[in-house]
Amino acid sequence: MTDIEIAQKNVMIPVTEIASKIGISEESLELYGKYKAKVSFAKLKALQAKAADSSSRGKLILVTAMTPTAAGEGKSTVTIALGDGLNKIGKKTVIALREPSLGPCFGVKGGACGGGYAQVVPMEDINLHFTGDIHAITAANNLMAALIDNHLQQGNELGIDPRTISWKRCVDLNDRALRNVIIGLGSRIDGVPRESHFQISVASEIMAIVCLSKTISELKDRINRITIGETYSKRPVTFGELKCTGAVAALLKDAIRPNLVQTLEKNPAFIHGGPFANIAHGCNSINATLCALATGDYVVTEAGFAADLGAEKFMDIKCRLNGIAPDAAVIVATIRALKMHGGVAKADLGIENLDALRAGFANVKCHIENMKKFGVNVVVAVNKFISDTDAEIELVKKLALDAGSEAVLCEGWGKGGDGAKELALKIVELTQKPSAFKPLYDLKLGLKEKIETLAKEIYRADHVEFDPKALKKISAYSAAGYGELPVCMAKTQNSISHDKSMLGSPSGYVFPVRDVQLYSGAGFVVAFAGDIVDMPGLPKAPSALNIDVDDDGLISGLF
Amino acid sequence: MTDIEIAQKNVMIPVTEIASKIGISEESLELYGKYKAKVSFAKLKALQAKAADSSSRGKLILVTAMTPTAAGEGKSTVTIALGDGLNKIGKKTVIALREPSLGPCFGVKGGACGGGYAQVVPMEDINLHFTGDIHAITAANNLMAALIDNHLQQGNELGIDPRTISWKRCVDLNDRALRNVIIGLGSRIDGVPRESHFQISVASEIMAIVCLSKTISELKDRINRITIGETYSKRPVTFGELKCTGAVAALLKDAIRPNLVQTLEKNPAFIHGGPFANIAHGCNSINATLCALATGDYVVTEAGFAADLGAEKFMDIKCRLNGIAPDAAVIVATIRALKMHGGVAKADLGIENLDALRAGFANVKCHIENMKKFGVNVVVAVNKFISDTDAEIELVKKLALDAGSEAVLCEGWGKGGDGAKELALKIVELTQKPSAFKPLYDLKLGLKEKIETLAKEIYRADHVEFDPKALKKISAYSAAGYGELPVCMAKTQNSISHDKSMLGSPSGYVFPVRDVQLYSGAGFVVAFAGDIVDMPGLPKAPSALNIDVDDDGLISGLF
Repeated sequence: MTDIEIAQKNVMIPVTEIASKIGISEESLELYGKYKAKVSFAKLKALQAKAADSSSRGKLILVTAMTPTAAGEGKSTVTIALGDGLNKIGKKTVIALREPSLGPCFGVKGGACGGGYAQVVPMEDINLHFTGDIHAITAANNLMAALIDNHLQQGNELGIDPRTISWKRCVDLNDRALRNVIIGLGSRIDGVPRESHFQISVASEIMAIVCLSKTISELKDRINRITIGETYSKRPVTFGELKCTGAVAALLKDAIRPNLVQTLEKNPAFIHGGPFANIAHGCNSINATLCALATGDYVVTEAGFAADLGAEKFMDIKCRLNGIAPDAAVIVATIRALKMHGGVAKADLGIENLDALRAGFANVKCHIENMKKFGVNVVVAVNKFISDTDAEIELVKKLALDAGSEAVLCEGWGKGGDGAKELALKIVELTQKPSAFKPLYDLKLGLKEKIETLAKEIYRADHVEFDPKALKKISAYSAAGYGELPVCMAKTQNSISHDKSMLGSPSGYVFPVRDVQLYSGAGFVVAFAGDIVDMPGLPKAPSALNIDVDDDGLISGLF
Repeated sequence: MTDIEIAQKNVMIPVTEIASKIGISEESLELYGKYKAKVSFAKLKALQAKAADSSSRGKLILVTAMTPTAAGEGKSTVTIALGDGLNKIGKKTVIALREPSLGPCFGVKGGACGGGYAQVVPMEDINLHFTGDIHAITAANNLMAALIDNHLQQGNELGIDPRTISWKRCVDLNDRALRNVIIGLGSRIDGVPRESHFQISVASEIMAIVCLSKTISELKDRINRITIGETYSKRPVTFGELKCTGAVAALLKDAIRPNLVQTLEKNPAFIHGGPFANIAHGCNSINATLCALATGDYVVTEAGFAADLGAEKFMDIKCRLNGIAPDAAVIVATIRALKMHGGVAKADLGIENLDALRAGFANVKCHIENMKKFGVNVVVAVNKFISDTDAEIELVKKLALDAGSEAVLCEGWGKGGDGAKELALKIVELTQKPSAFKPLYDLKLGLKEKIETLAKEIYRADHVEFDPKALKKISAYSAAGYGELPVCMAKTQNSISHDKSMLGSPSGYVFPVRDVQLYSGAGFVVAFAGDIVDMPGLPKAPSALNIDVDDDGLISGLF
């Protein structure tokens, strides 16, 4: 059976019952159909307060991964299976995940609800519009853009130089033709012509702000602080100067609150916020994580792509800024990806190859070492595929031990929570050990030095080559008082380096930083390395070709 | 109190109770919070079947209006008040309205939930994201665009000439800077450069298709038939040729089903689909109207702007294509708008002026005559403003009688259903008279002749001047077999003519048709007259300046 067939065969229980398992009554929910709900403002505040007390909150487990193949290594699947597995062994566990973007659903990667018998449901709804959060973010982002261009049109009182406007419009789709555009053409009534850009909604600063704001006040403060461009006299202009922040925040009043759904095994999962980890900060919302920490003894969350991206940002941005810390981390690996990093071609990944596995393990070893730099105890979870051989699995276990960790087989895809019991037991053991979380770098370091620390410590480069434009912007940001912000790296997910062709564990190379961009509302500086862009494109045969819906609204072909 | 304050002070009952009043059980609903719900596919089918039988469906009352001022004349307010008024006098009545676009909410006109004590609630939700229908339409529309541009990028197998692509992207905002754009700039990996356009989502062909499709099969058939451009050899290309229709339809599986909410007086209202009436066909969805006809003995619905726009399209497009007919029509007028049409400046509209009123009534007279051309019995509803004098109201009543109709005062804004009882009684009387509905023109007339009929019979022009480009396209559409489609006129709402400066009842002028556009999926040809555009702009001081939200999610300043 396909993932969607398994999900559709499953019989869900009402989300009110899921909520009651974790002490959330029906009055504290806003229902979106029978199986999706948002937490009320009052309950959200109560849960935030409970999670703020480190003695009353659950243990936080981060699921990250090795450098993935194009299909991903099953990080969501392992996250869900581990949550179900912990519940199976009697630990009250809540899952916190990101919500999927439409871009990958219709592109290459597919949805983000896990797979096989480790899924969150209703998967079609979650993968498509869900509760409308990303649509609200898109609308809020584009309302800001319309208001900025209208300011130019209506006399430009603030004297904004159209050539400096950095605020981009967005769509939650892969649409490369919108990367570089000229807008405002036509006549005098059709706007002011200028070059502009669209990004995918999940890379937008508004997405980051929704994920990092605990209250509407904080949301508005952050929106006010967004830098949208400069005046002709080179003064930075913030969105707050347009005095329309309330309207933008009104569009986000629901989007700021976490969504509750269930796993196939009827365990609770908060799914909220969806920044990509390659071109954004890659973590679900702080509000979802706090709700989970307040309601579960264990919380399993994930951060996007491999540990050099999502996990690093999880720790250096999300945990640091919110005073939370992971009690353990899981690095998801697959035998297939290990062989790919060992040089095996895609067509041969199903064939046993111990030498390639051994070589490819250098990638996992690098991620293990990296996680330990944050003071976090790690375990490797081998996400089982049918083609994996016993000899391969045994070899990974041995290599993990050699690298100072352990590897545990996770059969969540085929067996659900039962397939993750061993991993769950290992996690319970690991979280009883003392954890000594610390961020990788001190915020007081300069922006340039922070980027260099990331490049050397995590991406294993020899040194960083900054484009002169990037250096000039870094100086300006520092002079304007933004030097102590953390860095959010935008780079390929297909390598620990900036270059997708550098598999395994790259070293001895130059890490090129092409550009930087201030997200003064979100509170970080985005650095762009290599040829990464913030608007993906569609492939020659997009997934959209396979998706259909029948007259009863039943969807097929979504994965 | 402002509209939003009245709405927020009101205590709603659960939408399940509203549904049970009209025989819809909780199992037939998908809840969106406690106060909004969609009808299930199974129930929708059952209601469609019931409404198809003219002996078992309710009476259909269309609310339309005189040519409005910029603020609108309270058509939604009268619609809601009349629904409540009919319920007050013991007639089981269901309302069917369009859902609001975000564009006017943040621009000039405000929301579209009625006003005063005649509102549908929750008004903030309905005015902002509601159940996500318009966001789904925007996403579906833009997925189509991304797939079309991706086809060019990936080798252009169909040989589509980029210069001929007529499919536009959309946003549900007023954003003039997106009217004319160049996309696909950058390098080889960034798409194929071409000129393109954005329209507001509510003017999109997908919005029209969602409103006109009864089933997902019909939706897919219509999407397949959409003309997206031409090949280099001038063959028209339909979207179906890209073989991604299922994916687009999957995004619309919920958007095709009507939403149920309540009035302040706890009466049921279906609010679904939101095409503007100046640049689109201006009616709520056929599914919403059928659900209302199957569940109410009386159905009050509206069509956008004045009777020359929404009402004409309601009858010539929506009713004709679906075998339904209005049993009566209400023309909403205000003393203020009558005086405006009589030449009074905005600042003086609150001062009694019987001469101006008499002169301005020519506008209402023209609309009365127009409605009678469809064989529909009409009544004029005077939507009461505080500044109206008794003498003014008496004069309107007299003028209406002279014009072969009657005028009734509607005080719904101030008194809710109680203020519309007299109108309700008049409607019951009117719907007992025989009605002889017929469309204005025969579909077998040529496209050019249909446009000329509209211009002469409804807009009262002497003759039509077609731009040569428009004539050429009309010939091509006719040659391709589209000659028997109805026409959807895009023109200003501020005059019966194409020119907003021509108030009252224009005559003896030339009606200029600038362009035409085939909507082969929706099933009509859009004609553009005068300087109308399908993407509005924001004013110097947009409503967005006044909107805010507090830490409990309470919105203010929305009207």
